[in-house]
Amino acid sequence: MSSHQVAAPRPGDVLTAALDIGGTKIAGALVAPDGTLVHHTRRATPARESAGTLLGAVHEVLDALATHPRWDHVRALGIGSAGPVDLTHGTVSPVNIPAWRDFPLTESVGAHPAVAAVAAVAQKHVVLAGDAVAMAAAEHRHGAARGHANALCLVVSTGVGAGLILNGKVHHGITGNAGHLGHISVDFDGEPCPCGADGCLEGIASGTAITRHALALGWRPPRTADAAADAATVAAAARSGDPAALAAFDRAARALAAGIAATAALVEIDVAVVGGGVAQSGEVLFGPLGHHLRRYAAMPFLRRLRVVPAALGPDAGLVGAAVLAAETAAPATVPVPVHVPVAGSR
Amino acid sequence: MSSHQVAAPRPGDVLTAALDIGGTKIAGALVAPDGTLVHHTRRATPARESAGTLLGAVHEVLDALATHPRWDHVRALGIGSAGPVDLTHGTVSPVNIPAWRDFPLTESVGAHPAVAAVAAVAQKHVVLAGDAVAMAAAEHRHGAARGHANALCLVVSTGVGAGLILNGKVHHGITGNAGHLGHISVDFDGEPCPCGADGCLEGIASGTAITRHALALGWRPPRTADAAADAATVAAAARSGDPAALAAFDRAARALAAGIAATAALVEIDVAVVGGGVAQSGEVLFGPLGHHLRRYAAMPFLRRLRVVPAALGPDAGLVGAAVLAAETAAPATVPVPVHVPVAGSR
Repeated sequence: MSSHQVAAPRPGDVLTAALDIGGTKIAGALVAPDGTLVHHTRRATPARESAGTLLGAVHEVLDALATHPRWDHVRALGIGSAGPVDLTHGTVSPVNIPAWRDFPLTESVGAHPAVAAVAAVAQKHVVLAGDAVAMAAAEHRHGAARGHANALCLVVSTGVGAGLILNGKVHHGITGNAGHLGHISVDFDGEPCPCGADGCLEGIASGTAITRHALALGWRPPRTADAAADAATVAAAARSGDPAALAAFDRAARALAAGIAATAALVEIDVAVVGGGVAQSGEVLFGPLGHHLRRYAAMPFLRRLRVVPAALGPDAGLVGAAVLAAETAAPATVPVPVHVPVAGSR
Repeated sequence: MSSHQVAAPRPGDVLTAALDIGGTKIAGALVAPDGTLVHHTRRATPARESAGTLLGAVHEVLDALATHPRWDHVRALGIGSAGPVDLTHGTVSPVNIPAWRDFPLTESVGAHPAVAAVAAVAQKHVVLAGDAVAMAAAEHRHGAARGHANALCLVVSTGVGAGLILNGKVHHGITGNAGHLGHISVDFDGEPCPCGADGCLEGIASGTAITRHALALGWRPPRTADAAADAATVAAAARSGDPAALAAFDRAARALAAGIAATAALVEIDVAVVGGGVAQSGEVLFGPLGHHLRRYAAMPFLRRLRVVPAALGPDAGLVGAAVLAAETAAPATVPVPVHVPVAGSR
C-alpha cells in the first residue's frame, strides 16, 4: 500500500473523508472543500477474495486515513463504489467483485473504529453513491460541468458509465444507479450484451469494444515488446492514419453520440463531459464525437448541447464522494453558481 | 365548434382553465381539482392558416369557456401544446402548425379579454407545457402513474411522445421539451429520420411506422369500403393471427421496450404508462412489449419496472395542463401521495 501527503490543509478547513472502491483499487483521501486531496492512500482490491478480506482492505485504507493529524476534523465520509449499488439499503453488488452481493458497505464502513470515534460521521454522515455518479458530482462542483444545471458526465474506459446532474442537483435515481448509459441499447437489433439486452452502448463504445472492432477490421498492434492491443494503441494508430483504427473510433464515437443525444432528448442537458481512459485519446475521439453529435442531436432544442473533456483526473471519484458527503453535513457551506430555470410558469 | 357541459361543479371548487393545442384540434375545458372536466369545448385547428387565424381559433375556444357561469372562479390557465415549446420564452413552434414559429402563445392567451379580466390569472398563472408533459402530469396526478415518484408516460399514435416524472415532480427540462422519446436513436445505423438523426424510435414504433412495416411485409387492409391502412386495422389483423401484422407490432414493441429500458437505465423509473391510439390495440401491443421489456431492462435495479396502459383518455392533455397550472396558483392544495427516496444518505 502506498500512502502520501498531497497538500497541507488550510487552517479552519473542515475535511471530508472519501473512499473510491473499484475492481482494481481501493482509494481513500481526506478532501478539502475546494476539492484538493489533503491525504491520499490506496491499495489493490483483493477482488477474488472473500467478503471479509475485501472489507479488511477497506479498513486498512481507513486506518491509513485516520493516522492523519486532522482526522478529528472530518465531519462526513463519502463512498463511491462500483455498481450496482443500492442506496436505500446501503449495499453494493459490484460486477467485478463477486464476493460482495448486497454487501452492507455503508454500515461496515461506519463500524470502523476510527469512523465510529468521529461521532458525527458514524451517526449519519456516511454517504454511499455509485462511482460514476460520484465522478459527475466532482465535475459539477469543481470541473468541466461547473455552472451547468443539467449535465451528463461519462466515464469511457473498459466499460461505459455516467452520472447525471438535473436541475442543479446530482440525480441518483431510486436505487442510486441512474446514469447507466453503458446499458442503453443504441442498436436494438444488435449483438447480445452480457446484461441480457441487445446492442448496448458499452458493447460498441468501450475501450474493449474499440480494440475488438479495430482487430476485426484488420488492425494489428505494433510488434514491440510493450505494445498491447488496447484502446490507447488503437488511438495511436488512428493518429497515424490507420484506416481500421480510425473506423473503430468513428463507430464508437457514433454510438456515444447517439447515447448522449438520447439523454439530451429525454431530460435536456446542455453539456456532456467525457472522461476515462478512452477520453485520453483526445481528438481521435472528440473529433468524430462532436461531428456525429450534431447529427444525432438534431432537434432544435438540443442545439446548445456541447461535448467537452473531463477536467478532473482519476481522483474525480474521491472528490465527488467527498462533495456528496459534505453536502449532508453542511448543505449550505459551499454554494454552487448554477442557473435553474423555473419551468412552466411566467 | 361543439361545446357542452360535462359535469356540474361541486360548490366551493376552484376551477382551472385548460387548453390543449394540437395539429388537428384545439380543445378547452374548465377542470375541477379532481380532474373532472366541468365545461368542455373544441374546434378544428386551422393548421395551414396564418398565425393570426390560428390565434383567432384559440380565442374562440377561450370565448366559449368564458361563457361558463363559474369563469370568475378560475385561478389559473394551463396550456398543453404540440412541440417543440420554449418555456423560458413562452413560445411554441409546433411541427404540424407551420405558421407558428417561436409564436408567443403564453402572452397571446394572457391577452384574451376574458383571461385578462380574471386578474390573478392574467398576471402570473398562464402556464405553458409540452402536450406529452401535460399528459404525464395528468397520469401522475389522476391516472396510472399515481403514487409513483418516477415514471415515464408515453403517447404512441401517429408519432411517439412522452413526459417524465422524476422525484415526484414533472420534469419539464430546460426548455420544456424533456421526454422526447420519439427522437432517441434505438438503431444508430438505421434509417434516416426527418429530424436529421438515424434510427429514431418514432420511425419504428409509431402507428404510421407499424402500418408501413406491415405493408412492406405483405399485409393488406381488408377490401371493405371503410377499411383504412392504419395501426387499428393492422392490430385487428394481428388479433386474427396475420403473420405480417404480428411481426410489425412485435418490431414496434421491441423498439419501444428498448426506449423505455434506456429511460429506466438513465434516470430510474418504476413504471411506464403507455397511452395514445396505438395503445388502444391492447394485448397485441402490450403482450410483446412486456416480453421484450424484461429482456432490455435486464439490469438488476430495473427488475421492478412495469409497463401499464394509460388510465386517462384523450382528455389527459387538458387535465394535465390544469394540474400544472393549478400548482402555480396554489401549490399546497392538492397533495400527492408519493414516496421520494432520500438518495445517498442514511
